Amino acid sequence: MARHTFGSDNHAPAHPEVLAALARVNEGHSFPYGADGATAAAVDVVRAHLGESAEVAFVFNGTGANLVGLGLALRPWQHVVCATTAHIAVDECGGPERLLGTKLVELATPDGKLTPDLVRSSVSGVGDEHRTQPGAVSITQSSELGTVYSLDEVAALAELAHEQGLLLHVDGARLANAACSLGMELRELTTDAGVDVVSFGATKNGALGAEAVVLLRADLGDGVQFMRKQSMQLASKMRFVAAQFEALLDGERWRDAAGHANAMARRLADAVRGVPGVRITQEVQANAVFAVLSPGVAARLQERWRFYVWDESTGEVRWMCAWDTTPEDVDAFAADVEQVAEGS
Amino acid sequence: MARHTFGSDNHAPAHPEVLAALARVNEGHSFPYGADGATAAAVDVVRAHLGESAEVAFVFNGTGANLVGLGLALRPWQHVVCATTAHIAVDECGGPERLLGTKLVELATPDGKLTPDLVRSSVSGVGDEHRTQPGAVSITQSSELGTVYSLDEVAALAELAHEQGLLLHVDGARLANAACSLGMELRELTTDAGVDVVSFGATKNGALGAEAVVLLRADLGDGVQFMRKQSMQLASKMRFVAAQFEALLDGERWRDAAGHANAMARRLADAVRGVPGVRITQEVQANAVFAVLSPGVAARLQERWRFYVWDESTGEVRWMCAWDTTPEDVDAFAADVEQVAEGS
Amino acid sequence: MARHTFGSDNHAPAHPEVLAALARVNEGHSFPYGADGATAAAVDVVRAHLGESAEVAFVFNGTGANLVGLGLALRPWQHVVCATTAHIAVDECGGPERLLGTKLVELATPDGKLTPDLVRSSVSGVGDEHRTQPGAVSITQSSELGTVYSLDEVAALAELAHEQGLLLHVDGARLANAACSLGMELRELTTDAGVDVVSFGATKNGALGAEAVVLLRADLGDGVQFMRKQSMQLASKMRFVAAQFEALLDGERWRDAAGHANAMARRLADAVRGVPGVRITQEVQANAVFAVLSPGVAARLQERWRFYVWDESTGEVRWMCAWDTTPEDVDAFAADVEQVAEGS
Amino acid sequence: MARHTFGSDNHAPAHPEVLAALARVNEGHSFPYGADGATAAAVDVVRAHLGESAEVAFVFNGTGANLVGLGLALRPWQHVVCATTAHIAVDECGGPERLLGTKLVELATPDGKLTPDLVRSSVSGVGDEHRTQPGAVSITQSSELGTVYSLDEVAALAELAHEQGLLLHVDGARLANAACSLGMELRELTTDAGVDVVSFGATKNGALGAEAVVLLRADLGDGVQFMRKQSMQLASKMRFVAAQFEALLDGERWRDAAGHANAMARRLADAVRGVPGVRITQEVQANAVFAVLSPGVAARLQERWRFYVWDESTGEVRWMCAWDTTPEDVDAFAADVEQVAEGS
Repeated sequence: MARHTFGSDNHAPAHPEVLAALARVNEGHSFPYGADGATAAAVDVVRAHLGESAEVAFVFNGTGANLVGLGLALRPWQHVVCATTAHIAVDECGGPERLLGTKLVELATPDGKLTPDLVRSSVSGVGDEHRTQPGAVSITQSSELGTVYSLDEVAALAELAHEQGLLLHVDGARLANAACSLGMELRELTTDAGVDVVSFGATKNGALGAEAVVLLRADLGDGVQFMRKQSMQLASKMRFVAAQFEALLDGERWRDAAGHANAMARRLADAVRGVPGVRITQEVQANAVFAVLSPGVAARLQERWRFYVWDESTGEVRWMCAWDTTPEDVDAFAADVEQVAEGS
Repeated sequence: MARHTFGSDNHAPAHPEVLAALARVNEGHSFPYGADGATAAAVDVVRAHLGESAEVAFVFNGTGANLVGLGLALRPWQHVVCATTAHIAVDECGGPERLLGTKLVELATPDGKLTPDLVRSSVSGVGDEHRTQPGAVSITQSSELGTVYSLDEVAALAELAHEQGLLLHVDGARLANAACSLGMELRELTTDAGVDVVSFGATKNGALGAEAVVLLRADLGDGVQFMRKQSMQLASKMRFVAAQFEALLDGERWRDAAGHANAMARRLADAVRGVPGVRITQEVQANAVFAVLSPGVAARLQERWRFYVWDESTGEVRWMCAWDTTPEDVDAFAADVEQVAEGS
Repeated sequence: MARHTFGSDNHAPAHPEVLAALARVNEGHSFPYGADGATAAAVDVVRAHLGESAEVAFVFNGTGANLVGLGLALRPWQHVVCATTAHIAVDECGGPERLLGTKLVELATPDGKLTPDLVRSSVSGVGDEHRTQPGAVSITQSSELGTVYSLDEVAALAELAHEQGLLLHVDGARLANAACSLGMELRELTTDAGVDVVSFGATKNGALGAEAVVLLRADLGDGVQFMRKQSMQLASKMRFVAAQFEALLDGERWRDAAGHANAMARRLADAVRGVPGVRITQEVQANAVFAVLSPGVAARLQERWRFYVWDESTGEVRWMCAWDTTPEDVDAFAADVEQVAEGS
Repeated sequence: MARHTFGSDNHAPAHPEVLAALARVNEGHSFPYGADGATAAAVDVVRAHLGESAEVAFVFNGTGANLVGLGLALRPWQHVVCATTAHIAVDECGGPERLLGTKLVELATPDGKLTPDLVRSSVSGVGDEHRTQPGAVSITQSSELGTVYSLDEVAALAELAHEQGLLLHVDGARLANAACSLGMELRELTTDAGVDVVSFGATKNGALGAEAVVLLRADLGDGVQFMRKQSMQLASKMRFVAAQFEALLDGERWRDAAGHANAMARRLADAVRGVPGVRITQEVQANAVFAVLSPGVAARLQERWRFYVWDESTGEVRWMCAWDTTPEDVDAFAADVEQVAEGS
């Protein structure tokens, strides 16, 4: 698979600077499990973005970040409110139910985004011992459908959550893409907006594999080190996870990478928007384009390019751009879309 | 911490060839979650060592490998028999109990090694619904005390386990060290000896962080991909985990690295064996030296060198050698041991 | 609360013959945990109803029966397909997620009943490691909405389930009501229809508190005694649970009790069906009547009678009849319904 | 099994007054799940014994009481310290590990009783993320070996536990026997001694099956109703559980029943103490006698009487007296012990 794909941002390689950072920390002996200088430096870098009082714990992957963070936030009888499209709901093989023992209350949305009204509508049976009790709201930023919560939308969800005694969790596997889309700092969209827990992703931003659980409310961090170890998410040679964060977040590399991926998605959307037989179905706010294609088009296009059919029943497809997607990739792909669509 | 330590083999950096392998696979787009060529190649390499019918699933760390493997092997009411010193018993923050829901029946041993008699003595209450039922025996090879199970010892445990309807699991975080110690192939000590499940470690052998669950009995592998994903152990950019395995196992690098670490431990043991106030407590069969020091010696030595006190009450220490420990490190350390011990 | 209610069949007392049976077995010492004659006799009675090869384990309550039965049927990554109204989904405080670690895939229905088409529509992502895999279909018979699956409907679900490699579980808290409604034997509706696991309820049929897990497929019963004990559902003085089953099921008492409750519900439905401002919303096939009342009617009626508002938003109420509901209760209640509805 | 046994206090029937109480509450309809008058009255009775601020939740059995109470007390990475003989350790089929996800740290004792020194010796690795952290101490009162913790012993354990930040849980399946043994009120031994959580048993005291979780520290009770329901321990027709408590605890029936059982054990111990070939191994402080018999004696005695061999390897047996054991039972049994022992 030499050529670029539109399959996922995790089809992309690591950014060369990430590999360079690995080489830099690969010198001599180092204390394990995060008691090393590279980890301390990376924690500082994350705090520079998300606030000095943030509790930061590096983990292996996004599912790990979600489950460690939510695990600290919930009591055994509390459920998590999320969208039906949420990664925790459909892409973690039941990890939340299995490892946290928590029920997910999954709400249908048109665009992958919860709203205060939707969340409020799900709150019922409070105090009734037969029902699970609401414990947290989980949103994905940017969402699984390529949309982005505005600052006001995040803040409104945080306010509602806190009014109801719930926490607000952000699955930020693509948080960088959301911040770039809005032209904001990471902190504005999270800490300052009232978010309590963030799964902060670097993998899709250009790392090999590095994520962080970030606890923004002081009391939530209590025990995170135990929860992480118990959850099989503690790297022994932690410097190699930490260095990836530093490579991307110390400076503007994270922004360049995510901003570029977003720009490529917009370029693609712009190029195919007028093509007959192609209907873009979601606002293109981050690095994904969702579109419904005329019957047969997706299959023929997949003979040349790799991407996922999102919904077999409607023919909706997902085209995802990455930090390394080139304008030439986009233009060539768009040309093929047009050609195939017109030939259908 | 520029100089080498005797703290742990996870204080060591990654082998340069491992980093080189990462760079080699960091080209272009690749299917995620293991559906890529690098992963296929690495699975083949592991199978070349452990048998063509082995089911191989790469994971992030040793705790993950242990829990995914044991999770496939156990029914809800079955317990695992292990040594009191086992990593699963004391170093995984209760992960087996929490994530698998399994009880560990922990047996005291003089040398970190279970025996058929010990295991047999733990089997009671079979069929009694009030008691958990034995489901698996788990041994660590080489053990947490630096000792190595001989082939006969492994085979005898496998035979007993199978007689009793149990599975034999090997925590092989340092399996390479054991094979080198015995001058055997990895397969002889596992597949051919009757082992059912192996947690096969590369991290301590020179990787950044890469382990594998290897299921040697065909039926056990059923569902491993779900168990791995649900257990937060599925890497999206899997090629970077797989490449580490290939770098170490395709050829003799694994053997050179582990054999060297073992040799350094023997060199250290030989150098300090006659020193007054130093009593070596375990056979030095792999890459660790355990010793009881005269009072005060450990503390003074720790002013110069990093290592762990294993047992505060007895003054026993653990000195661990790694793939990059040099003869000069060993000699300098041994000289300091001698000097401090004599001064005490 | 001297007078009868229409709140629930668990508001009712125990049948006098159940108490008499307790007194009969309360003689002398008896082996505990089910190794006694009363338990053996009760198992025989249940087998006479559900088949000689049924594995029968008495438990304390319906939630216990559901979780023990489903726990035996599922692998860790499998989910249960059920209706959104299912007891396991909304009335067990997340027990399935917490104790089994299983996800429930909850499907909306108009009448509380799953159909083969609905179940089929939920099956997707089979073999995809990111998705939980379907493991069981769970239906409630009679349903939480007072409707009854016909024999053909059960058989069709069993056939579909087995085609797809799933098990069919019946939450039979009111199985007796369903059998009476259809004029069938218990066995025809379960064992003979292809059902794999039944939670067989006696409590709502007139017991103090007694349920049974019944495994109709031989291999599923393996380990049920451990699962029950581990799940806190093993009574030490089991004779007192078993005697309740024998009192109801040895003879026609179960049928008289459930048949009477059903008849009272029909009598109530018939009495109020024409009343302006009362709209019966579900077929009255078992012992419940669901109706939407004009605004304000429910509240005024609740000043005189105890029953539950099922849906605050629509004004739908549930009126439940029990084994001891009298025609006079029904007539007095129906008269009050009419009076209050007309006055509104 | 018409004649009395020395097998267990759960071989005994229910006290006639318990059955009478069931009949009294079996009148008319009643709110379910504990919202009824009988439950309110029973809670008041338990509070009269254990303190007005006690949170009381009735459950089905002792395992349920233990797991609900401990579940409220522990965070996910905390373990429970208990004796190797503890019911939670050996008689609940791994329920604590499975349902709470908690590790048990099991300490060997000569007499079934933990001491402050033993508990202190088990506390290590505090703050080390690789180790589970101590969360609670659990003692059984009276113990599984028939011994009783004195008030000073309980208070010393409570003091140590609280110093270390742990809770003290009492498995009080036979709490009544302990209080009678010491001539104390239930409250003196629990609430006043600093105990935090009690599993308060009525079954062995003469109930059919009724236990209670009692939370003596205000904050621990938060959520108990959810934990109970989720743990499958909420009875729908709760009046029948509650009435059993009232029958035994409102007045002196509990004391008469437990005191009698204790007296019978002492009578038995006194009768056989001098018999050659019979060595009593534990202090007879509650309703059990433990003894080592000469080889062959136990087997011959079991031809006439039912009791358990406690330890096959030593020939130790357990003889348990119940509320209904008669002096004639004891004398006949003691005579047979003497006859068989002499004949051996």
